[in-house]
Amino acid sequence: MAISDQDRKLERERIAQLVLDLIKVRGTEISLTVAAAESGVSRGRFDQIFEDYDDLFDAVAQKWLAPHISVMEEVVALDMPPNRKMYEFFRRRFVISRERFQSDPEYFAIVCEMGATNFERVRSYVDLADHYLSELIVQAQADGYFAGLDIDQTLSLINQMISNYTVPDSLLYLGDRLTEEKLARIVDTIFIGLSAEAGEAAAGVNMLKVAS
Amino acid sequence: MAISDQDRKLERERIAQLVLDLIKVRGTEISLTVAAAESGVSRGRFDQIFEDYDDLFDAVAQKWLAPHISVMEEVVALDMPPNRKMYEFFRRRFVISRERFQSDPEYFAIVCEMGATNFERVRSYVDLADHYLSELIVQAQADGYFAGLDIDQTLSLINQMISNYTVPDSLLYLGDRLTEEKLARIVDTIFIGLSAEAGEAAAGVNMLKVAS
Repeated sequence: MAISDQDRKLERERIAQLVLDLIKVRGTEISLTVAAAESGVSRGRFDQIFEDYDDLFDAVAQKWLAPHISVMEEVVALDMPPNRKMYEFFRRRFVISRERFQSDPEYFAIVCEMGATNFERVRSYVDLADHYLSELIVQAQADGYFAGLDIDQTLSLINQMISNYTVPDSLLYLGDRLTEEKLARIVDTIFIGLSAEAGEAAAGVNMLKVAS
Repeated sequence: MAISDQDRKLERERIAQLVLDLIKVRGTEISLTVAAAESGVSRGRFDQIFEDYDDLFDAVAQKWLAPHISVMEEVVALDMPPNRKMYEFFRRRFVISRERFQSDPEYFAIVCEMGATNFERVRSYVDLADHYLSELIVQAQADGYFAGLDIDQTLSLINQMISNYTVPDSLLYLGDRLTEEKLARIVDTIFIGLSAEAGEAAAGVNMLKVAS
């Protein structure tokens, strides 16, 4: 008997969580075969729920990233100044990752590695984060920030300057050198300093401008 | 017969370069045994030159990082404004890494991985880079930049904001999204925006200050 859409959705979520729990307990990635064997459903039914490993990976990634997606949505809806909002946009996700890292560093490292290995499959999450960050940039530009830069330039520069707080692997290398206080300083530095003027002094091209 | 200090030094450099050439040709890390077999000297002599794998690794790392160290020394000696100097400090090393990456991405990736695996052994290079960057920060502070921040705070924040241009692995992930133009913008953003005031607005603690 074919599984109903509703049951399939529930089963995907249940098994995705089960896979995350198994990774945590066993300290290793979980193959499709193991996931099927542990799922409590027949292999025939399992194959109706997940097409292949990639499909299972997507469900697991979605489960893992759900809290990040939900705080991004929360922050975008907040009514606060753009610098406060951007700080919260990064801070809340950083706090989720840090809590996970601190409560089980080994588990956290395995999930990071799975994400790195299957990077193309988490791209939709990265795209979503870029989409929301672009919205925040537009709001900030309406208030006069990032003058003279287009959205994509601003997006790329902010992502580069803030990457240690968004790429989860950074916690493995930098640990408690990453703090909310430093993140706040970086966000303010970006809001104070980043505009089309930036890049001219360091690159040594503003002397002509000053002289003209 | 024991090897002279002078010969030992020359042989270390020759074999370190040989190991780098072998990594490039064979596309894999080179073990101590293989290095000894390919070195053209007897195993007894090889053991006089290198104590163990760690010692060989140090010589290889030193050879690989020599151009980076020499541009850092050059830049620190330059007589130019602190923002220009800091840009050059990062730009020249970034250009070396980018050229290496572009000319042979696979070779570059293997060397990066070796560095990551033996991170504690490249720490002295990281410490040296921090030492020179601290000098640049002191010079910049003498000109009024980074007001109210101590050297270590400034160092940590700059390292975090610029890390995609110093951590060589970033080239593997970001490729041509890393550019000298963006680096210049980031350095200027840091010079314009970074001070003890930064962090208050984003964190939402400057309202009291404004009101007082």
